[in-house]
Amino acid sequence: MSQSTPLSVAVVGATGVVGRTMVQVLHERDFPLGELRLLASGRSAGRTVQVGDRSIEVLEATGDAFEGVDIALFSAGAETSKELAPQAAARGTTVIDNSSAWRMDPAVPLVVSQVNAGDLDWHEGIVANPNCSTMQLAPVLMALRDSVGIERVVVDTYQSVSGTGADAMAELEGQIRAHVAGEPKEASIYQHPIAFNALPEIDVFLDNGYTKEEWKVVTESRRILHLPELRISCTAVRVPVFVSHSEAVHVETTEPLTPERARRLFASVAGVVVNDDPASHAYPLATDAAGRDEIFVGRVRQDPSVRDGRGIAFWVVSDNLRKGAATNAVEIAEQLAERGWVKAAGRRGAAAAPVETPA
Amino acid sequence: MSQSTPLSVAVVGATGVVGRTMVQVLHERDFPLGELRLLASGRSAGRTVQVGDRSIEVLEATGDAFEGVDIALFSAGAETSKELAPQAAARGTTVIDNSSAWRMDPAVPLVVSQVNAGDLDWHEGIVANPNCSTMQLAPVLMALRDSVGIERVVVDTYQSVSGTGADAMAELEGQIRAHVAGEPKEASIYQHPIAFNALPEIDVFLDNGYTKEEWKVVTESRRILHLPELRISCTAVRVPVFVSHSEAVHVETTEPLTPERARRLFASVAGVVVNDDPASHAYPLATDAAGRDEIFVGRVRQDPSVRDGRGIAFWVVSDNLRKGAATNAVEIAEQLAERGWVKAAGRRGAAAAPVETPA
Repeated sequence: MSQSTPLSVAVVGATGVVGRTMVQVLHERDFPLGELRLLASGRSAGRTVQVGDRSIEVLEATGDAFEGVDIALFSAGAETSKELAPQAAARGTTVIDNSSAWRMDPAVPLVVSQVNAGDLDWHEGIVANPNCSTMQLAPVLMALRDSVGIERVVVDTYQSVSGTGADAMAELEGQIRAHVAGEPKEASIYQHPIAFNALPEIDVFLDNGYTKEEWKVVTESRRILHLPELRISCTAVRVPVFVSHSEAVHVETTEPLTPERARRLFASVAGVVVNDDPASHAYPLATDAAGRDEIFVGRVRQDPSVRDGRGIAFWVVSDNLRKGAATNAVEIAEQLAERGWVKAAGRRGAAAAPVETPA
Repeated sequence: MSQSTPLSVAVVGATGVVGRTMVQVLHERDFPLGELRLLASGRSAGRTVQVGDRSIEVLEATGDAFEGVDIALFSAGAETSKELAPQAAARGTTVIDNSSAWRMDPAVPLVVSQVNAGDLDWHEGIVANPNCSTMQLAPVLMALRDSVGIERVVVDTYQSVSGTGADAMAELEGQIRAHVAGEPKEASIYQHPIAFNALPEIDVFLDNGYTKEEWKVVTESRRILHLPELRISCTAVRVPVFVSHSEAVHVETTEPLTPERARRLFASVAGVVVNDDPASHAYPLATDAAGRDEIFVGRVRQDPSVRDGRGIAFWVVSDNLRKGAATNAVEIAEQLAERGWVKAAGRRGAAAAPVETPA
C-alpha cells in the first residue's frame, strides 16, 4: 500500500459467510484501515463480531450508517445493494458490491483486480465485484487473450455450497450427518439433496434454458475481458464440497499453443499459481485451495479436439469466498486507495465508460 | 427374448460391485438362464452369493471353470481378463468383458447395445463392454451423428466412487464418518481425500497429460460410433457421489439444431429418457438414476459459443454400475442369444472387421 492515510471501511452483510471473510481478509492484509464499521440487517444488528482481539458490534445497515465511510464492501444480496448502494454513494462512500445488482450496469465497472483495474478510473461511486465462478477464470483467460487470442471457451464448474451461503453449508453438513445416522436427508436451501449428488442448477433458470449462474460466466467474462463478442459456454454444477470452486476449461485459441507455453503464461499472472505435476499426483484441489487467496491451475494439456495445436484444456480451482469474493473486493479497495480513486466526486460520467454491456 | 434355449452363464468377479450387479441384472430380466456359475479369485472362492432365493457358492476362476459355459460376463480387472478370456474362448465360451483389456483390439467388437450391436456379428469369442463414462454418452451422440452430424464434442464428467469399486465406496463412507466424528480423513484408494473434494484424476496418467479414463472416452467413442476421426475432448473428475456418473456435454454439430429437436432425437433412442423441465427443477440427478437401467438427458439448450445454431449443450446421467457396466453386458448377452451368435466357432476373422482402431 503506497497510501498510508487510514480509510474508514464498512462491511455490509458482516455476519454472512462472505462478509465474515471480508472482515478476515481486511484484518490479515496491510490495509490502511481506520474505523471498521460492521453493518447487517436489523435482524443481525446488536450481534458482535470478533476481529483479531477486538469485539465489534454489528449496526443496522441504513443510509445514515454510511456517514463518514470511505469504502463500503457489500455482500448482502442484490436487493439490499440496489437499495443501499446509491444511498451510500450519495454520501461520498465508494461501494464495492459483491451482488449481481450492478454488474451489467454500463456506469459501473466490473473489476477483477489483475485483469481490468484500469476500469476503476471511471467509477461513479459503485464498483461491482464479479461472480465467483467468473472471477477465478478471468485472469487465466486474460493470459490467453493477450498472447494467442481466444476463439471459444467451454467451462464446466464444480461449485461448493459456500457459494450459496452459511445455510447451504449447514444443509450439506446436516445431510451428511443424517446419512451417517441412517436418517432421511432434508433439502430446503437446494431443490434436491446436495449430499452425494451433482446438481446442475445454480441460481434461477432463464428463458434460454441457462441458469443465471451460467449466463453470468458468459456476460461477466465478456465485460471483464473487454471481449464483448467472446464465444463462451458454461454448465454450472453444485457438488458436495464446502469451500472452493473447481472448473474444467477447454479453450480454442487463435494461434497454436503448447501446454508448456500455456503453463508459463498462466504462471506469469499475478495471483495465479500453476500446480501441475501428474507424476506426483499434483493438481489443484478444492480442499487445498480453501483459505488461500491464489487461483490454482493444473492438468494443462493439448486439447485434441481442436486442429493445428490451437486447443488447450486445463483445471482451475480457487477459494470462492476469498479470491472469488472477499479478497478481490479488498484488492479493489487497495487499488482505489493506491491510485487515489476512492472518492467518486468529479469522476467521469457513464457516457465515457469504455465498456459496453453485451446484448 | 426370442430364443428360449437356456444358456449356461458365468460371472467372473462375482463378488465385486459390478459382478454383483451383473448377477442382479441377470436375475431381474427375462434372460434364458440355465446354470449360473459364479467365479472369482481364489481369495473369494468358497463365499456364497444370494441370488433371489438361491445361495450360490463362488468357485475359483480358472480356465477349466468355463467348461460347458455359453457366455461369461467378466468384471475382474484387465489382468485377469487378459489371462482368462482367451482360455474361456478356447473352450467355446463367448466372453463379454468389462475391463479395458480388449477394448482397442481390432479383433474384438466394442459394443453399446443401442449403438453398434451389428459389430457383434464378427466376434471371435470375446466382446468388449465399454468404459462407463463412454457408455452413457455414445447412445446420445449417436442420435446427433445420425441426424445433424458431429463436428466436435467437449465432455466433462462428475463420476461416482462406485466406478472404482467397493473399496472406494467404503473409503468415501469412512471419510464422511471421520468428518462427522471430527477425526482426520484417511485416503488410500485415492491419492487425495474424495470427501468434499473434486479429484481430476481417474485411472493412470498418460504421456500426453490425459488420464487413461479421459483417453478412453476419446478412443472408445470413436470406435463405438464408427467415427475414427471424431474430435472429442474430456476432463474426467471424481466427485463424492456413491453411484451414477453425470456428464456436462457440449456438441458442435454440422447442421443447425434446436433444443426442441435435440430432445426429440434423444428421446427416440432406446433406453434414453429425456428429463428436462427447468420450471419444475426437473433434470437428471445421480441419486435418481441410481438403480435404473436408463440413460437420462436434461438441461438441453443452445450453446451460444457456436455460430449459426450449430451448438447444443446438455447433461447426461446414468447408473455406472448398471447401464455403464452390468446392464450393457447383459444386453449384449441377450442380443447374442437372440441372433444365435453365442458361439464363436466359424465366426469371421479379425481381418474382416469393419472397424479400425483409431490412431
